[in-house]
Amino acid sequence: MGGPPDSLPEKLADTIASLRAGDVRAMAAAMRAADDELPGARELLRAIYPLGGGAFVVGVTGHPGVGKSTLVSALIGAVRARGERVAVVAVDPSSPFSGGALLGDRVRMQRHATDPGVLIRSLATRGHQGGLSRSTAAAVAVLDAGGFPVIFVETVGAGQAEVDVADAADAVVVVTAPGLGDEVQALKAGLLEIADVLVVNKGDRPGADRTLAELTMMLELAAHPGRPGEPPRAAPALLRTAAETGEGIAPLASALETLRAVPATERQSRRRRQAARQLMALAGEQARAAAWAALGTESAPGPLAALAEAVASRTLDPWSAAETLTSAGR
Amino acid sequence: MGGPPDSLPEKLADTIASLRAGDVRAMAAAMRAADDELPGARELLRAIYPLGGGAFVVGVTGHPGVGKSTLVSALIGAVRARGERVAVVAVDPSSPFSGGALLGDRVRMQRHATDPGVLIRSLATRGHQGGLSRSTAAAVAVLDAGGFPVIFVETVGAGQAEVDVADAADAVVVVTAPGLGDEVQALKAGLLEIADVLVVNKGDRPGADRTLAELTMMLELAAHPGRPGEPPRAAPALLRTAAETGEGIAPLASALETLRAVPATERQSRRRRQAARQLMALAGEQARAAAWAALGTESAPGPLAALAEAVASRTLDPWSAAETLTSAGR
Repeated sequence: MGGPPDSLPEKLADTIASLRAGDVRAMAAAMRAADDELPGARELLRAIYPLGGGAFVVGVTGHPGVGKSTLVSALIGAVRARGERVAVVAVDPSSPFSGGALLGDRVRMQRHATDPGVLIRSLATRGHQGGLSRSTAAAVAVLDAGGFPVIFVETVGAGQAEVDVADAADAVVVVTAPGLGDEVQALKAGLLEIADVLVVNKGDRPGADRTLAELTMMLELAAHPGRPGEPPRAAPALLRTAAETGEGIAPLASALETLRAVPATERQSRRRRQAARQLMALAGEQARAAAWAALGTESAPGPLAALAEAVASRTLDPWSAAETLTSAGR
Repeated sequence: MGGPPDSLPEKLADTIASLRAGDVRAMAAAMRAADDELPGARELLRAIYPLGGGAFVVGVTGHPGVGKSTLVSALIGAVRARGERVAVVAVDPSSPFSGGALLGDRVRMQRHATDPGVLIRSLATRGHQGGLSRSTAAAVAVLDAGGFPVIFVETVGAGQAEVDVADAADAVVVVTAPGLGDEVQALKAGLLEIADVLVVNKGDRPGADRTLAELTMMLELAAHPGRPGEPPRAAPALLRTAAETGEGIAPLASALETLRAVPATERQSRRRRQAARQLMALAGEQARAAAWAALGTESAPGPLAALAEAVASRTLDPWSAAETLTSAGR
């Protein structure tokens, strides 16, 4: 990706033309500008958003240590083998894509580093959650407008990040592995309900059979009601892989292609639900930012700093204070 | 805790009197009412909030499998040994406190189950993140008003939950363990910045020395700048425990007592910062709820459903749509 400038070219139209032509340097510059909220970045995102929608976006999520990055690396190989370009957005700070892991892992990733058909974007250092979600959405919008037909988004599967990836992906792969402790229990805690495909990676290790059996039983027992406000969903496909040896990658790639081929009406329904969630998240983020500005900090108090003081000294409860805060912003 | 009724008594004053008298059945009923958003629950929380503030709230967080629950169980023992009552709010769905773990773990917890000086409240099944935060805040407010001098809040440390616990606790214990994979890298991803005490549990296992050495080095290198908008903070204390055998529990309990004894001004500053974050979160949650109501679902569209449709079909970008949504709510 070399060293593109840290600001966008003056002319929006030129940038858009470069992006549409698939210029990866222009894409990298646009993603960096969005991360850093440089002038013009928001206008660019608004302008390119309507150009996207063609990419098949696959979220890959799971707890640390399950081998997500190795799995993504193997999937990149499968996509490249059929001649398609592919982009990866790595949101997991412990991902070797993000430079955060051990040397051995990083070396393993190198096989795609020199392939011009593969673009890897790491968002490991973006810090707090809101910034990460914003940067991830921007990166996907840029890569989508830039014409990448397949985009993998790798996130560490826990808390808000897993929900964000479900709201941005056409298919979600939830990865687990045997021997991590309470992996099956941990999956119950929200990951299962977003999975389109459930993968037991490191499937050649001791305990893999037991993990698969437990998950099979859990899937049979679970109701798969869908997320709140959503229609019931099919049970996720359950697959075993050993990404290090390549075992099970072809069936996984094939399962993803099946998901890619859903009817347009079904995809549109899913994207409509995702858009609603995304808008809800953005509205929440705007309200948080407004509240933060109104409250300020101890050294630089905002106009409504007294509300935080009152809650801290227990003269006011937080729920009443929040209502006052929200009304004041209107 | 027996079978208290699922609604609050008619007379708020009676309930408050029962809570202040330390009636655990009244506390359980109040927490359940808050979870289920029963009529009167919000009024009760508002009324009792000013009565609290006396409890020392300790967050205990870390990835699944590090032994958080066993550690909390050992800490309960230390608190009980000095004669104080103690409450636990278990937010971790994989916690044995929540009934989610293997039989062996559950049996291990039993030693506190019959102790009337110990109240354990599980919030494992509350589902989505917003509900969990709300239920956790309500449970702590009830237990605090109910006179528990020490409250442990156990959360799975990842994503938003870890930040929520940092915003609700007077001290945060971040737990790790050797042999989980990239545990040190994973800690970098947000847990370190909220830790007042960093514990390497399972410290009698192979690899513990190395994990401790790596964390020592990391703490020496790290800047500890504090969270955004907060003053710089002291490096967390680093301790080794083996909760199963009780090794290291006394020093950990002692470290917590030191944190409990901070000057009132310092505690007030921390609580002021926490109040600001809590209000910000509540304002965000209110805005999300308003947006959700305006957008509706596919089968039951809200007044602004067209915005989600436009984003899904790429005729409008999500950032512009969110602005329209927010303005319409004013």
